[in-house]
Amino acid sequence: MPTLLLDKERCLRNIEKMAGKADHHRLSFRPHCKTHQSATVGSWFREFGISRITVSSFRMAEYFAGSGWRDILVAFPLNPKKSGTLDRIADKCNISILVDNPEILPFLISIRHRVKFYIDIDTGYGRTGVKAEHPEQVEEIIRLSGKNKNLEFAGFYCHAGHSYRAKNAEERSAIHAKAIGDLNRLKEQFRNHSPRILYGDTPNCSTQADFDGIDEITPGNFVFYDLFQHSIGSCGLEEIAVAMACPLVSRYPENKRLVIHGGAVHFSKETVERNGRPVYGQLILKSAKGWEPYPGEHYLDSISQEHGVMENTGVLFDRTGIGDQLYFLPVHSCLTANLMKEYVTLDGEIIDTIHT
Amino acid sequence: MPTLLLDKERCLRNIEKMAGKADHHRLSFRPHCKTHQSATVGSWFREFGISRITVSSFRMAEYFAGSGWRDILVAFPLNPKKSGTLDRIADKCNISILVDNPEILPFLISIRHRVKFYIDIDTGYGRTGVKAEHPEQVEEIIRLSGKNKNLEFAGFYCHAGHSYRAKNAEERSAIHAKAIGDLNRLKEQFRNHSPRILYGDTPNCSTQADFDGIDEITPGNFVFYDLFQHSIGSCGLEEIAVAMACPLVSRYPENKRLVIHGGAVHFSKETVERNGRPVYGQLILKSAKGWEPYPGEHYLDSISQEHGVMENTGVLFDRTGIGDQLYFLPVHSCLTANLMKEYVTLDGEIIDTIHT
Repeated sequence: MPTLLLDKERCLRNIEKMAGKADHHRLSFRPHCKTHQSATVGSWFREFGISRITVSSFRMAEYFAGSGWRDILVAFPLNPKKSGTLDRIADKCNISILVDNPEILPFLISIRHRVKFYIDIDTGYGRTGVKAEHPEQVEEIIRLSGKNKNLEFAGFYCHAGHSYRAKNAEERSAIHAKAIGDLNRLKEQFRNHSPRILYGDTPNCSTQADFDGIDEITPGNFVFYDLFQHSIGSCGLEEIAVAMACPLVSRYPENKRLVIHGGAVHFSKETVERNGRPVYGQLILKSAKGWEPYPGEHYLDSISQEHGVMENTGVLFDRTGIGDQLYFLPVHSCLTANLMKEYVTLDGEIIDTIHT
Repeated sequence: MPTLLLDKERCLRNIEKMAGKADHHRLSFRPHCKTHQSATVGSWFREFGISRITVSSFRMAEYFAGSGWRDILVAFPLNPKKSGTLDRIADKCNISILVDNPEILPFLISIRHRVKFYIDIDTGYGRTGVKAEHPEQVEEIIRLSGKNKNLEFAGFYCHAGHSYRAKNAEERSAIHAKAIGDLNRLKEQFRNHSPRILYGDTPNCSTQADFDGIDEITPGNFVFYDLFQHSIGSCGLEEIAVAMACPLVSRYPENKRLVIHGGAVHFSKETVERNGRPVYGQLILKSAKGWEPYPGEHYLDSISQEHGVMENTGVLFDRTGIGDQLYFLPVHSCLTANLMKEYVTLDGEIIDTIHT
């Protein structure tokens, strides 16, 4: 079976670096846990003084509350049918939620615990959030929330996820600058509420230097990084902390094709472009201490449900035999981790997740 | 949480139709279980007299052996490290495997049970298999396997998966005709071994009428079908037997955007093209008895890890409210089922899988 390896040293370095950056910019650090989804990996953050986390579902909130976290932001629009769950978790810890639509407020009228909410702001991503250009909608949400004594407006949250689509560093910096500008304008407009500003996708938190006016950052993927983050300049290949170990199950001399056990149910179907074509993973050379890119750049060219295929592997072909393990950096570590359900460290320790 | 609904009536009709087609063409029917991965759904096949199944991993083989199946083909190249597992399962049932490379044979020297093997034939798909144009490689595998008394050559297996890439019915028919021709030529060349011919992806098994020389068909996806199969003409929309139920969590009047809880960790990242752009699911109208396409064709336009987004929804927008359930046909039912881990029937019954 394919296995998801976790290089704990690299992972700790990634956490340390981001925690250090937050300190340097005097930002609070509320890492997003949707990438690792693991109580054990979560516990590593505590060593760096982290006491607040972000999650993307109530299921994750319950899981992490169960492992001792006492300040959790659910960064996903509330499903009105979940107000009971919200109350149950709020009984155990400080839970905060996102609101971006006054329609949700009547569903919160019956909550029994005091809950902080952040207004989700859209600075151009176009997924969720009140458009930054519409402060009157922010005003309306704050006004209507005032009818519910258990709701406390705490500030603004922004995930500038269009940073993932930026074509180059300049474009990403422009996305970042607009977000910072928008959020600071709102902070000023609503200063009588002393709003906190929560911000931070992995690309921007990894690469930007100006966090003026931001109070707290919430990146998640940086804990492992992946080929996609590398492709947009968020990290070096040597910072990617997870790798798939897949058995080589057949070899075809004619076109030097290698077939591994490792497909869409292991890697996910996410691709990144390399040399003008989509690939599903990059081959690495594993040593006892970690890994490095395999010389000559080899990629996983196609996958189906269980199969992975590498074409025209050249001299690599002759160095392999059926039954060998091949190792690959995944394209999107969040989705790969979600599919693989557990990690194995380089020391052979099995790391649990919400799925195990 | 998103839920994967299973319309048992449609599913039974799909099984009945394929079993009927097999009967009509006097083919044995060995359905592939990788799509449903469920002992319960598997048991529905028994009502149609099915006693043989196909799976794509030893883990699946053990799971289905545990629910009483006694004739299982593992249609995936054997990982040499799994010969112990092979023996363990062979202790309980008739297990057959695929071989497409003489390199695997030495690893099988220690098996203690008699195991049938089929030689995997590549008629143009280019994933696994001995190329049909190289009967000398077939000869070599049969000759070398003769050294192992526990290995029994049983015939040829072919998954003509390039049928999924065919641009139209003519192209698919040409792929099918070549496969049938290749397999019959091999059957004739190796007639002294009385080889059985196992064949059959869902597109070809659903649409072709000539199965001359084929002994057994092994399609899998047809049990549920999906938007992709529909897009290439394998099924009608009304034959798709699974649908995602996703809560509507926010609404944005400006561009009539709807956001659901339902993302890449529920649907998978598989897309199909509709009106020149990739979509992740098609909106349907659910009734107590089943579902039908939502009038006007509405699609899931983009997804991230947990979010699904529909843009410019027009009159649909005004008919919705936060907390509503929206229902979607998935693009690739195999991957969606694998992620969702269980089904809920229209009667509310929870159906287990290998993951539960």
